[in-house]
Amino acid sequence: MNKIILFTLCLCLTSVAAQAQQALTDNGEVNSPVVHEDQSITFRVFAPRADTVRVWGDWMPRTDGQTEGAEMQYNGEGVWTYTTTPMPSDLYTYYFQMDGVRVLDPENVHLVRDVSTIFNMVIVEGGRGDLYKVQDVPHGTVAKRWYSSPALDRDRRMTIYTPPGYEQKTESYPVLYLLHGMGGDEEAWTSLGRTAQIMDNLIAEGRSEPMIVVMPNGNVYQQAAPGKSPKGFYKPTMQLPNTMDGEMERTFPDIINFVEENYRVHADKESRAIAGLSMGGFHALHTSRYHPDTFQYIGLFSPAIYPGENENAGVYSDIEETLTEQKENGYELYWIAIGKSDFLYDQVKRYRSELDSLEIPYEYLESEGGHTWKNWRDYLSEFIPKLFDKTH
Amino acid sequence: MNKIILFTLCLCLTSVAAQAQQALTDNGEVNSPVVHEDQSITFRVFAPRADTVRVWGDWMPRTDGQTEGAEMQYNGEGVWTYTTTPMPSDLYTYYFQMDGVRVLDPENVHLVRDVSTIFNMVIVEGGRGDLYKVQDVPHGTVAKRWYSSPALDRDRRMTIYTPPGYEQKTESYPVLYLLHGMGGDEEAWTSLGRTAQIMDNLIAEGRSEPMIVVMPNGNVYQQAAPGKSPKGFYKPTMQLPNTMDGEMERTFPDIINFVEENYRVHADKESRAIAGLSMGGFHALHTSRYHPDTFQYIGLFSPAIYPGENENAGVYSDIEETLTEQKENGYELYWIAIGKSDFLYDQVKRYRSELDSLEIPYEYLESEGGHTWKNWRDYLSEFIPKLFDKTH
Repeated sequence: MNKIILFTLCLCLTSVAAQAQQALTDNGEVNSPVVHEDQSITFRVFAPRADTVRVWGDWMPRTDGQTEGAEMQYNGEGVWTYTTTPMPSDLYTYYFQMDGVRVLDPENVHLVRDVSTIFNMVIVEGGRGDLYKVQDVPHGTVAKRWYSSPALDRDRRMTIYTPPGYEQKTESYPVLYLLHGMGGDEEAWTSLGRTAQIMDNLIAEGRSEPMIVVMPNGNVYQQAAPGKSPKGFYKPTMQLPNTMDGEMERTFPDIINFVEENYRVHADKESRAIAGLSMGGFHALHTSRYHPDTFQYIGLFSPAIYPGENENAGVYSDIEETLTEQKENGYELYWIAIGKSDFLYDQVKRYRSELDSLEIPYEYLESEGGHTWKNWRDYLSEFIPKLFDKTH
Repeated sequence: MNKIILFTLCLCLTSVAAQAQQALTDNGEVNSPVVHEDQSITFRVFAPRADTVRVWGDWMPRTDGQTEGAEMQYNGEGVWTYTTTPMPSDLYTYYFQMDGVRVLDPENVHLVRDVSTIFNMVIVEGGRGDLYKVQDVPHGTVAKRWYSSPALDRDRRMTIYTPPGYEQKTESYPVLYLLHGMGGDEEAWTSLGRTAQIMDNLIAEGRSEPMIVVMPNGNVYQQAAPGKSPKGFYKPTMQLPNTMDGEMERTFPDIINFVEENYRVHADKESRAIAGLSMGGFHALHTSRYHPDTFQYIGLFSPAIYPGENENAGVYSDIEETLTEQKENGYELYWIAIGKSDFLYDQVKRYRSELDSLEIPYEYLESEGGHTWKNWRDYLSEFIPKLFDKTH
């Protein structure tokens, strides 16, 4: 038996991959990242020929959104090290810079893509981070599913979370439509957003109704995430055509129709929620008022608010009128959250005063921090327990 | 509108990530990889302070499974370049080595994990590679699904591909159980193996029956892939306990039962196929003879064959007897494929002569190359069109 294992061990690994790994593990000490009992984290990388190695982390303080990262210390034997102070429980992303070049931690295969940048991930447990970790609880199903959008005349891809037991049961569920920001796609909320873990854990704790979470692609120009469509492998970009021109909002019924025809859901307003971050908050705002009797729960996370100057016609005409109609039709929750240092803070402030003057009720959460996934995971975790009548 | 886009553009990108990218794109020339019309590929990386940069590619010739990679040329202005000769259409993986440290191509977000190593991917179109690319054809659904295994007393995770239209139709489908190798998990066949693309494309070409492909985790010791179970984020290893000790084969009915209770499938032998690569070939071999009247189609891709010396009892006792029983019960196809330079070649040769002496019929494909994903994607593409009665 050992013989087979050893043979397979040696040769299944594709050749020099093994060689590169060996240089690290022969050293015997290069474990990275290591979360200590006091919740500090040590990062290590083996780079004997480098002049400088830095670590960049999403927890580091920033000036104008920028951080220099932190210098790693060289131990004289090839290994560079950096240890943080004790960290609050959360999910963190990081990478190294070796002589100015971005390098992922070769010891950590847990990666996440934000637009065109790949980061390593690490979770500090013992609090908020536990919500983002896979726990020993019943798990929902995450599917990558294609659907036809007649209004856009193309097949498009979405991510759908169905709650634990969905397949065995015969009951119907409410639905949250959860929208990503600019540069994101149908993969953002389940990767950076940890939606499946948050849902599994909140449901297991009895803090969330079992629900279906639909995460469509909000870039109507795209069929699917970069690399997942017939366009093939290409480098993602932040800016795409037609992202905030009304097409997403206008064609949103295609998504609802597909979900309500293909899943066991309550196909009524009381059982529909819509939320999104940044551009997705913009889409949630305008979709919910353009279809003003469709959603019972609306969540705007660090939302963009105002359409561009050239976007006064079509979907974006009569904004006050449709907001008023939405209010008159009634809804259970209109929830807005933003960080104090978010660059969209002033837009949200202006929008709140407009809602006030229209006497449109909303709940408001103002958090620390800015336009970050840390905040959006937080906001989702706060928003979910508020959704749907538990006695439906 | 531009204002919103620009603000969002600047700040949605998480701070220094943008900075690092900027260093590359300011240069204006660092596109990588670029596939040229003659099917050669150019790789580039911006690393002005590096002494040496090499590219390692899975197409490079090897001695004893090892390759040195190829030296990249410095242009004097920060950019290192390497261009291949024209390449056959296929999917290729690569990475850079900068002063001895593994570096992924910062311009290419399309990554794939093999055990504990991450690679960049590139597809050269115009032949075999087209089968591995997302094409403009109907797409099946890929779901990550948890199920209960009573025999192992735990919840476990599998990947399931359902063919285009599965959700809209009422008909039932045949099922292929597709097993990964040592160090792999339930994610291997859809990532490195490109199973969803191969299935979509073969079905669209009319070369495959619409079928369900079930990709379980073949390490009974694991609940799920590294990072996807309550064990959290950890570094994957090749060697796990209980991988080839009979537990996978013995408990396989839990997987079949789950699938047949939860999906619209033909629950009969005629509609079941089992195949796997390396350790998964071993599992397919021994599962199919231990449950000798269960599978109509068996595929062994570069299979390990023989249980270890200490594994003579239980599942691995009476191998000849159960193989003979399997033959007598009948099957449609027993298909074995292996590369001429595969380290398991001699095992397969010995097994073939044993099958011959037992007068057990099989089909045999001997390919070039060794124990590689290039071969396993090939073998899957060859095997699939042979499956299932088109008139079922």
